[in-house]
Amino acid sequence: MVADMSQVETQHGRTLELAHPYLLFLGDIAEPGYAKTAMGLRDWAGERCLAEYTLDGGRGVGLPRMAPAAASAAGARSLVIAVATPGGAIPAAWLPTLLEAIEAGLDLVAGMHAKLSDMPELVAAAARHGRRLVDVRTPPPGIPVASGRKRSGRRLLTVGTDCALGKKYTALAIARGLVARGVKADFRATGQTGIMIAGAGMPMDAVVADFAAGAAELLSPDNAPDHWDVIEGQGSLSHPAFAGVSLGLLHGSQPDVIVLCHDPTRAEVLGHPGYALPRLDEAIDLAVRLGARTNPAIRCAGVALNTSGLSEAEARKAIAEASAMVGAPAADPIRGGAEFEALLDAVLA
Amino acid sequence: MVADMSQVETQHGRTLELAHPYLLFLGDIAEPGYAKTAMGLRDWAGERCLAEYTLDGGRGVGLPRMAPAAASAAGARSLVIAVATPGGAIPAAWLPTLLEAIEAGLDLVAGMHAKLSDMPELVAAAARHGRRLVDVRTPPPGIPVASGRKRSGRRLLTVGTDCALGKKYTALAIARGLVARGVKADFRATGQTGIMIAGAGMPMDAVVADFAAGAAELLSPDNAPDHWDVIEGQGSLSHPAFAGVSLGLLHGSQPDVIVLCHDPTRAEVLGHPGYALPRLDEAIDLAVRLGARTNPAIRCAGVALNTSGLSEAEARKAIAEASAMVGAPAADPIRGGAEFEALLDAVLA
Repeated sequence: MVADMSQVETQHGRTLELAHPYLLFLGDIAEPGYAKTAMGLRDWAGERCLAEYTLDGGRGVGLPRMAPAAASAAGARSLVIAVATPGGAIPAAWLPTLLEAIEAGLDLVAGMHAKLSDMPELVAAAARHGRRLVDVRTPPPGIPVASGRKRSGRRLLTVGTDCALGKKYTALAIARGLVARGVKADFRATGQTGIMIAGAGMPMDAVVADFAAGAAELLSPDNAPDHWDVIEGQGSLSHPAFAGVSLGLLHGSQPDVIVLCHDPTRAEVLGHPGYALPRLDEAIDLAVRLGARTNPAIRCAGVALNTSGLSEAEARKAIAEASAMVGAPAADPIRGGAEFEALLDAVLA
Repeated sequence: MVADMSQVETQHGRTLELAHPYLLFLGDIAEPGYAKTAMGLRDWAGERCLAEYTLDGGRGVGLPRMAPAAASAAGARSLVIAVATPGGAIPAAWLPTLLEAIEAGLDLVAGMHAKLSDMPELVAAAARHGRRLVDVRTPPPGIPVASGRKRSGRRLLTVGTDCALGKKYTALAIARGLVARGVKADFRATGQTGIMIAGAGMPMDAVVADFAAGAAELLSPDNAPDHWDVIEGQGSLSHPAFAGVSLGLLHGSQPDVIVLCHDPTRAEVLGHPGYALPRLDEAIDLAVRLGARTNPAIRCAGVALNTSGLSEAEARKAIAEASAMVGAPAADPIRGGAEFEALLDAVLA
């Protein structure tokens, strides 16, 4: 459960790095609700996704179907398990395909509850063929304690009023929006799906607490002065269980700009009844106050609302209300439009 | 580096628990600066310390000298490595004594950089004799995600303007002071030395970030309404590397009362030049604002100053100034006196 301290001090820390393009594996799972990772990869990392492969009974997400050997011959470098399963286990029926992929020269990548590295057949095959088993829930070795040193380049961090309300997709949409304007920008991933989409990253929630800010520093190293790292936020500074992760990420990211993510249909912290979500202006004030410790120039560009549960008219109203409350642009990054362009303007202001 | 998630969900979480009384082992180390753990145990957990044992060239801390077999016969249940070594290694020359202790029926307890469980001879001997190897830097399995549920009983947490300025000894002194007044109180340990002193605890800095607040909840479970848990703080909410640990501990502890610990001779964060320590009133305001999320009734009783680097006159002056700045009692808990009694009054107010 604890970092191997000898590694911590002797290795040069790096983020996780995945070999691509990917073959997405969906096993025998037909339920679309379990295929969110595959859909996220298809929509946000299309250039990294060469093909998909399903077993009997499985359902794809519309990519060309290729068996591992054919995918490898076509250039694939990793098989990514891109579905969830009930309970998070890796079904035994998938093992022949996973072994086939290793034998075809592919790394295996997974972010499930069960670890690839806990399956002896896979460990032996990977060693025999010189392939990697990458569990994206497992942090890399060598994460240092944060230095607090100011780094070159510009940084944006998405923060939230809660978990699971759009911090990843907001960061992806902002990075994409900046690139569309000709601004140099990279999405920096801090969670499992984000890491698969970016092909690299740091699973912040699994880092040992003392190294959380150091892990965030590692994730967004020095860069060109006009380059933006757009960093996927985690948790919430007001979350009764996960605020420590959020604060370590905030301090280590040293963001110049934050964007507050919120779901206007949510009143309480998910899974923690009785904990009301903070007001938008209070959440911004708290994030700016805490973030100023490692970057005194931190400012909030505006609010990203997840309006997926609202009609178009309701969404427009919620966006206008949020903007009025905080005195800054608000937008749903997935709906886009003029409000989102105004939010990007505020980021770059 | 990551929690074994199967353990996390299937085991009932517990803190680390050490078997006592202890035989303190100081090896062949003569430098008193390395014996701080032994001195802390002697001074704060005298009732748990049966004897000490040194090798040729070593220096004790004034307890009766006993070899492991004799200590075991006299009732000892653990040999505690109570010295540091240069680099944190366990010297090979200590191995015969450690094996002798296992054979005599003692658990081994250590909090060094090197792990007992990485020494195959010790692992084999412990298995053979049914003894435990307890690395107090390694969190126990089964730590849950925090629930945020309000627990019965009263809680005090020491918070700080920095690391390493007296949060542990302040908590110990307050717990001792409360007990001396007939108040039910327990010291709750969150670091290596504290865990050895208390005989139980949670190494907060080594817990995986997502479980930090949950670990703090585990450390101070429901208790009698008039019972106080006096919890050892870690890090600082203003620390550029460790604030996340401090916030997880604050949220999970749900303190009714905080005491701010400070060293008036320190101007910058240790090891982080350029990071000025926060003002006392700002540090209190931030801790109360953040702590109110899980305990809206949180309040600050006052300030504990570490005046070990000051003369008596200088200390009196620093204490008076701190008290005036925050409008609450200030005291050096180690010097004690009327100021410290006033601080205890404020805790119980």
